[in-house]
Amino acid sequence: MSPKNITATEINDDFDVRFTHRLIFDRDVLAIDNPTIDRIFADAPTDEPRAGMIVAVDAGLAAKTPGIHDAIRGRFDRPHLPDVREILEVPGGEAAKNDPAVIDRMLDAIERHRIDRRSYVAVFGGGAVIDAVGFASSTAHRGVRLIRFPTTVLGQLDAAIGVKNGVNRFGKKNFVGAFDVPVAVICDERMLETLGDRRWSEGFSEAVKIACLQDAAFFGEIEDAADGIRERDLDVSRPVIHRCAELHLRHIANSGDPFERREARPLDFGHWSAHRLESMSDFERSHGEAVAIGVCLDAAYSHVDGRLDRGSLDRIVDTTVRLGLPVFDPLLLDTGLIEGLEEFREHLGGRLTVTLLEGIGHGVDVHEMDLDRLRRSIAHLESNAPA
Amino acid sequence: MSPKNITATEINDDFDVRFTHRLIFDRDVLAIDNPTIDRIFADAPTDEPRAGMIVAVDAGLAAKTPGIHDAIRGRFDRPHLPDVREILEVPGGEAAKNDPAVIDRMLDAIERHRIDRRSYVAVFGGGAVIDAVGFASSTAHRGVRLIRFPTTVLGQLDAAIGVKNGVNRFGKKNFVGAFDVPVAVICDERMLETLGDRRWSEGFSEAVKIACLQDAAFFGEIEDAADGIRERDLDVSRPVIHRCAELHLRHIANSGDPFERREARPLDFGHWSAHRLESMSDFERSHGEAVAIGVCLDAAYSHVDGRLDRGSLDRIVDTTVRLGLPVFDPLLLDTGLIEGLEEFREHLGGRLTVTLLEGIGHGVDVHEMDLDRLRRSIAHLESNAPA
Repeated sequence: MSPKNITATEINDDFDVRFTHRLIFDRDVLAIDNPTIDRIFADAPTDEPRAGMIVAVDAGLAAKTPGIHDAIRGRFDRPHLPDVREILEVPGGEAAKNDPAVIDRMLDAIERHRIDRRSYVAVFGGGAVIDAVGFASSTAHRGVRLIRFPTTVLGQLDAAIGVKNGVNRFGKKNFVGAFDVPVAVICDERMLETLGDRRWSEGFSEAVKIACLQDAAFFGEIEDAADGIRERDLDVSRPVIHRCAELHLRHIANSGDPFERREARPLDFGHWSAHRLESMSDFERSHGEAVAIGVCLDAAYSHVDGRLDRGSLDRIVDTTVRLGLPVFDPLLLDTGLIEGLEEFREHLGGRLTVTLLEGIGHGVDVHEMDLDRLRRSIAHLESNAPA
Repeated sequence: MSPKNITATEINDDFDVRFTHRLIFDRDVLAIDNPTIDRIFADAPTDEPRAGMIVAVDAGLAAKTPGIHDAIRGRFDRPHLPDVREILEVPGGEAAKNDPAVIDRMLDAIERHRIDRRSYVAVFGGGAVIDAVGFASSTAHRGVRLIRFPTTVLGQLDAAIGVKNGVNRFGKKNFVGAFDVPVAVICDERMLETLGDRRWSEGFSEAVKIACLQDAAFFGEIEDAADGIRERDLDVSRPVIHRCAELHLRHIANSGDPFERREARPLDFGHWSAHRLESMSDFERSHGEAVAIGVCLDAAYSHVDGRLDRGSLDRIVDTTVRLGLPVFDPLLLDTGLIEGLEEFREHLGGRLTVTLLEGIGHGVDVHEMDLDRLRRSIAHLESNAPA
């Protein structure tokens, strides 16, 4: 053996993996005569044994929707649809992502019922339940088929759309997760009627966020719709939910970086402080409300930083308030807030990237934040928050 | 609200995600004057803080390679390379995949050292250690950067190449895992010298497998090289290892289905019984040896089934024996063997798909196996195994 006459040999290969994302808005999808669920399975092979399915249901949703177990079993009781082998209830809200037992219970059910890569996991619930159940389904056998039924506004216009699954560890949001694309995301408008007013309103903070970043016309639509949304008028709210969901899906599909391998994640506007507020409040501050505050904070900072005019800032804060959302939290005054910047940087990796506004509809990435300007932005929100 | 006038709205989007796979063969990559590791990081951005790295080392390798910790620290002690923050030893062999504590220790180290998506995890070890460490790195922050240094023949020509990561759960191989592509796979020939003879030989069963499936000329090369391989002549073994690795990488990149969403996985030839033999033997039968037996079993079945001529079967069995590999195990006579077919089907999903041979170099998928023919195939191996 002669070490020195060996030259390193390198073999490289690039390859593309194609993913298909289906997003459906409908009403009463569990009704016996509604064809949407049948349509999802229309192209299933007929020469294979009937696929199995386990279903996870947000316990909060189940409590408010008597008979949902029977409705699910009844709707899938057709030979060309997957065979429902078990329905599990999963604690709703951030608890689903904080408790490792949720993942263990899901994996155990997947194993017991021989759910394989051609079988299904369906999940009915809010964004957190969907994230946690999706992490189990995306890692079992390196990915069984997932169908998401988001039942909150936040889930339908943002959280359930796209490629992320994950849970919290070490007190950190989404510390462990996997990219995976669901077979379909089915948004049932009827489910939104089970929400309390706070859970209803919080979802629209993500609509404000994406409009601020990408679409001034859409911001105007939200502004016009804000009072109707707060009154829970579905005919006013529906187009906002659909448009927001569509913008999210298009961003994921067309950004060229759906699995976030590169630097910019412009959809994270307002999120560095939002994630931090959630954990500082022991998750008493919900994600949507924290995002409302985070969006207003980064808008205020954009103004203090000389990028965003005062009129635009006022429109953002005013619309947020009219949607029934908070724009300030006393935790913003806590010195621990700033650690959110480092935690956010660590999750994304590389240097800090925060998105600011140079006008409504125009996000821009920056790589540092000035602490004094941040304090002045917080003071602005404190003095402009409704009493 | 008027349910009946709402029509389901569907928004679909397809998108491609591009992955790049780098595979490097070299010798003495930890030597101070070897440039291979520098080359991997040559295009790292210079305007970012130095990235961190944690390193997992197979405990078996560390025991046989005194000074490997210092060698790793010394080689990476350059400002343009990642900063080694901790070196962890991980139990080698299937224990790495059976013990959930391995994943927990890796995630804990990733969290403590603030390893982010632009930071690195490096792993030195056999295929099982690489699979387990890769599962932790591919799920932390939904994926930190992984560099694999496979140190066994099996790792270098098969297991460390490609997109799979995972661990065992419920006594089932790879029950939990994730698809993710490493930044680079660096195969150091020097590391192979630490292997015992059984660990050396077992890797070549995967070369026999892929040659049987895809490449009759390559099978001829293995046949010619078999005695030199058994004598551990590197000049004879090296081209076989490189060619086998290249075939694996090309298959993954060019099959059109690297993440195994569809049915066929022709690289699983001989694996339904191999996985079962491993678990029936409580993993005393190594993966490579089990694959040698599994390949001979499915070759024998191909002959009994009238697909493969006797001469070709004899060449396969003879080459396997000359490589120092087993072709029979008494566990093949256990009635539990057959459960391997269902377990294998479940992991892949859908209907059973097993690959048989219609000649050396020509794999073909079938969807059932006849138990009587299987018994005759096992009897053939029993009577043809060396005493």
